[in-house]
Amino acid sequence: MSSLRFSITTSLDGYVAGPRQSVTHPLGEGGDDLHKWAFAVRTFREMHGMEGGTTGPDDDIIAESLRNIGATIMGRHMFGGGDGPWGTPPWKGWWGDNPPFHTPVFVLTHHPRDSLAMQGGTIFHFVTEGIHAALDRARKAAAGKDVALGGGADVAQQYLKAGLIDEMEVHVVPVLLGGGSRLFDHTDGRQTAYECIRVVSSPSVSHFKYRRKG
Amino acid sequence: MSSLRFSITTSLDGYVAGPRQSVTHPLGEGGDDLHKWAFAVRTFREMHGMEGGTTGPDDDIIAESLRNIGATIMGRHMFGGGDGPWGTPPWKGWWGDNPPFHTPVFVLTHHPRDSLAMQGGTIFHFVTEGIHAALDRARKAAAGKDVALGGGADVAQQYLKAGLIDEMEVHVVPVLLGGGSRLFDHTDGRQTAYECIRVVSSPSVSHFKYRRKG
Repeated sequence: MSSLRFSITTSLDGYVAGPRQSVTHPLGEGGDDLHKWAFAVRTFREMHGMEGGTTGPDDDIIAESLRNIGATIMGRHMFGGGDGPWGTPPWKGWWGDNPPFHTPVFVLTHHPRDSLAMQGGTIFHFVTEGIHAALDRARKAAAGKDVALGGGADVAQQYLKAGLIDEMEVHVVPVLLGGGSRLFDHTDGRQTAYECIRVVSSPSVSHFKYRRKG
Repeated sequence: MSSLRFSITTSLDGYVAGPRQSVTHPLGEGGDDLHKWAFAVRTFREMHGMEGGTTGPDDDIIAESLRNIGATIMGRHMFGGGDGPWGTPPWKGWWGDNPPFHTPVFVLTHHPRDSLAMQGGTIFHFVTEGIHAALDRARKAAAGKDVALGGGADVAQQYLKAGLIDEMEVHVVPVLLGGGSRLFDHTDGRQTAYECIRVVSSPSVSHFKYRRKG
């Protein structure tokens, strides 16, 4: 059985995006600071078509999170912000012509839309039937590999609350955002079903990995 | 000018006490797990009259947090739980005959009460005039040394929101409590006035130290 694996960066005060998110500031005010650690490492840069970057524990952890992934699930805001019906022609999202996923990506939305094939093997499918349907389709598409769960907070909370996440890794950076989207909110406390299996720290980020208890 | 210094342990999901706190479970369900790292180190054990304990980064950080402290501020729940008027005779709190503070301690409460002198130099004063009055009295009592701010979350939030904390260190443990008292809540986002000056991690806890920006 393929696992549903979740990996996300939060500020020390618990936010995965800052306050006042918008289409021009998708991560909210200060939210870009969350991902500086990732932009510094080689595997992440390679994945996004950039050169250089460091190796070491942070890089190893990103590399690990990408291994054996056959499909991805994300919320509409992570795909491309905005609300309501898609425009004509619909926007192709934040991720450029060659998105870094290189797998089928299942985007949770309330508004139906045709699938969208991009360069490099990424194909976006838009799922209006909810989180269980998206997971079923993603598992099938992954063909035995694991499924990666992306953000945002709302989607992660729904999967956590439903007990569907098998493994999660929270990357905590010393940034304080003061507001925005909290990761651990509206989960009915279901995160207590997980146990920590590894902590790895570098000066810029602490990685806490959890697995669902037996 | 003496500094107001704050040091607290939170779960990875942001709680400084678990759900369903009571006089018999002052830290709520699962809350005792927050402080296992502290009970393991020598300085903390010594301070609480216990033998043994490890040395190393976690111990160094606790030792640093205790240096140059001349007075302490805490909320009523940290002193001794409960609500409403004090009983007759009033309870002497959680901390035993020889509390680990060895300084004047200013306890914020809505209910007046005579000061309470304990062994070892700890004397509890009960302050009903709010956080500014408590800080003024604590600074005077500290006589040039720093003032330590204890918990709970409510008291910490009030001081943070009022911009009165000079330095804070958040110790994050990989525990997930699922509910309880959140540290970063009701602060009007005032934590964004702080910058991280140090991160130290051990396998059991990550220490994030902040100072108020210029």
